[in-house]
Amino acid sequence: MMGKPESDAGTGDAPSAKLIIAAGETNPDLYYRTRFLTPDPYVFIEIGGRTTILVNDLEVDRAKKQARVDEILPTRSWEEALSKSGRPASTVNIVSSFLEERHISSVSVPFDFPVGYADGLSANGIRPVPLSGLFFPDRALKTREEARWIREVQVGVEEALWVVARILAESEVRDGFIYSGGIPFTSERAKSILKREMLERNLLAQHTIVAGGEQACDPHMEGSGPLPAHLPIVCDIFPKHEESRYFADMTRTLFKGPVSAAHKALYHAVLEAQEKAIALARPGIESKELHHAVVRSFEEAGHHTGLKNGRMEGFFHGTGHGVGLEIHEAPRVGRTGEILKPGHVITVEPGLYYPGQGGVRIEDMLYITETGAENLTTFPKDWGTVAIP
Amino acid sequence: MMGKPESDAGTGDAPSAKLIIAAGETNPDLYYRTRFLTPDPYVFIEIGGRTTILVNDLEVDRAKKQARVDEILPTRSWEEALSKSGRPASTVNIVSSFLEERHISSVSVPFDFPVGYADGLSANGIRPVPLSGLFFPDRALKTREEARWIREVQVGVEEALWVVARILAESEVRDGFIYSGGIPFTSERAKSILKREMLERNLLAQHTIVAGGEQACDPHMEGSGPLPAHLPIVCDIFPKHEESRYFADMTRTLFKGPVSAAHKALYHAVLEAQEKAIALARPGIESKELHHAVVRSFEEAGHHTGLKNGRMEGFFHGTGHGVGLEIHEAPRVGRTGEILKPGHVITVEPGLYYPGQGGVRIEDMLYITETGAENLTTFPKDWGTVAIP
Repeated sequence: MMGKPESDAGTGDAPSAKLIIAAGETNPDLYYRTRFLTPDPYVFIEIGGRTTILVNDLEVDRAKKQARVDEILPTRSWEEALSKSGRPASTVNIVSSFLEERHISSVSVPFDFPVGYADGLSANGIRPVPLSGLFFPDRALKTREEARWIREVQVGVEEALWVVARILAESEVRDGFIYSGGIPFTSERAKSILKREMLERNLLAQHTIVAGGEQACDPHMEGSGPLPAHLPIVCDIFPKHEESRYFADMTRTLFKGPVSAAHKALYHAVLEAQEKAIALARPGIESKELHHAVVRSFEEAGHHTGLKNGRMEGFFHGTGHGVGLEIHEAPRVGRTGEILKPGHVITVEPGLYYPGQGGVRIEDMLYITETGAENLTTFPKDWGTVAIP
Repeated sequence: MMGKPESDAGTGDAPSAKLIIAAGETNPDLYYRTRFLTPDPYVFIEIGGRTTILVNDLEVDRAKKQARVDEILPTRSWEEALSKSGRPASTVNIVSSFLEERHISSVSVPFDFPVGYADGLSANGIRPVPLSGLFFPDRALKTREEARWIREVQVGVEEALWVVARILAESEVRDGFIYSGGIPFTSERAKSILKREMLERNLLAQHTIVAGGEQACDPHMEGSGPLPAHLPIVCDIFPKHEESRYFADMTRTLFKGPVSAAHKALYHAVLEAQEKAIALARPGIESKELHHAVVRSFEEAGHHTGLKNGRMEGFFHGTGHGVGLEIHEAPRVGRTGEILKPGHVITVEPGLYYPGQGGVRIEDMLYITETGAENLTTFPKDWGTVAIP
């Protein structure tokens, strides 16, 4: 799964208190710091390293069991006090009351903190200061335990892809298409098998890509219809674990039946570029060096990148991205980047896309260690594995 | 699935231009208006009813095929112009350039618009005005087509629950627990079966609840371990369709083996309260009337609500919530509410929770029509169906 566009810088210098108002379910920063999942928003405040959450009655019991915070307070007491004083018992008023009690007049908030809450706090005399970059910088640096959770997801991804590879091995080629059990083997069928296999392992996969031939020239196209023989089939799989909430991300490009020399060369150009980038991955290097290595490798091999007939061809996405509680997170691995550190988990996923020929992408996930990088991906990428007779 | 806490009001009067910067994947308002899903943020602007999106090169091709908007512009041209003028090619600067070209100096943004973007726009002389309430009010009013998509999800939910009900029918009771195939039938196994059945229908279910006995006293507890016989088992299932992105939401409380008179009475108290609320559902009524009917019904039947030994018991959540592209959306059905209109899809889900006894919740989904309400839920709730011998 290719990386995000460039991010924006926030503003201001940071107050020491931190505030998040969000659902544990949808806010990875909040979940990272509290390990407490909720479908609905709750309030998180950190003051001098001490963490407090304000939750409604419905969540108090579960919060006591699950939330890794120093203090759990029910919103009810403030609701009652506000109602008595004739002010609305809104989230903003509850948070403002709490912060006033603790003598806090400005708070750091995430870049994506809702502007509606921010305006409400300002009106109550509390200054919200959006932080640029990571709200909890440690989130980008995975512990060994977090790396194990990611690897656990990756094992499921690989087991699922083996099931599809085995079906391709047992299928046959007719009129340029792949047939399994006498009927065309489709993208939809392949994705359904991948998803079912992953679900058995508690992995939730959305937007899995199985795109063959021309479809793969658009790197985000998920693929549909009968899968072509002889042409590259891009399989990009990036589920999250329902319990740990961590993602993994892998792409393999498979072929069924005899393959032309040109397609074989395209595959090897991508593999060679990827291996050059992977060889550079270690703490202390700027991640953009990996991207530059890929770009250089494609240029040297004569693979053109740019507009052709109004459409981009060649290599026109970033080389990779961080993976963790989000499928795309820090650090970026592209034209811009940052210095790799022990604990970073990044993908390395160069690709080449040529309308008329098809697309190839190969993606591994690396864990940056004190001394180098561990490849968390073990699915082979040699020609003998991916070119299925 | 129970409703959200009370929401906050936004501020200000609304400029006619509307702006969203978000990922199609995670922002239901954006997806509602464009029907274009992306993993990464893109820019949406509506000026005088005309819609424009600004997307990066990676998404242009797919946007042309899928996005239901009037204009699709690549961000590249502004990126180049900004770079030439020495300003960062940030999203905020691109949006500001676009708005300046169109002579727009203030924009309505959603309540949850990122404060970091809002501050950046302000610094560029564009005034963002957060809207309170619904950004696209029509989103709460489902067309007949949207109601069909929701019903399609609901059919899958019911088929999945029938599979579990059949297993309960074929299972036996030993030492107060349910056994299937000679081993204890667990919450985990039941949830796994539900999820697999739904996946076959392209339904993604998270946080499915199968909670028996004491566990169900916490309405959000998902449940774990061997399921008890004789006691209520709350099954709350609320998946979304991977393609249409619409949710459905149903709760049934099942029993296995002989049930005490007290538990049977508890079940019927909830069913009676639910039926009273459903009977009120029609356009023109305030949704809080449904909630009041439930509260009154429980009070009349002598079922106490309040704190006991520091813990809430009785009925302590809202009666329902809207369902659509989010599992919890407008309108609210609780202590506060709003006037029901044709097109609203709401849940009606009273429950009673008594530590020491267990919890019962029954939830249907209604489609408000011109003349009344259609029940989109067809899974029976009579005692003969839910009390499985």
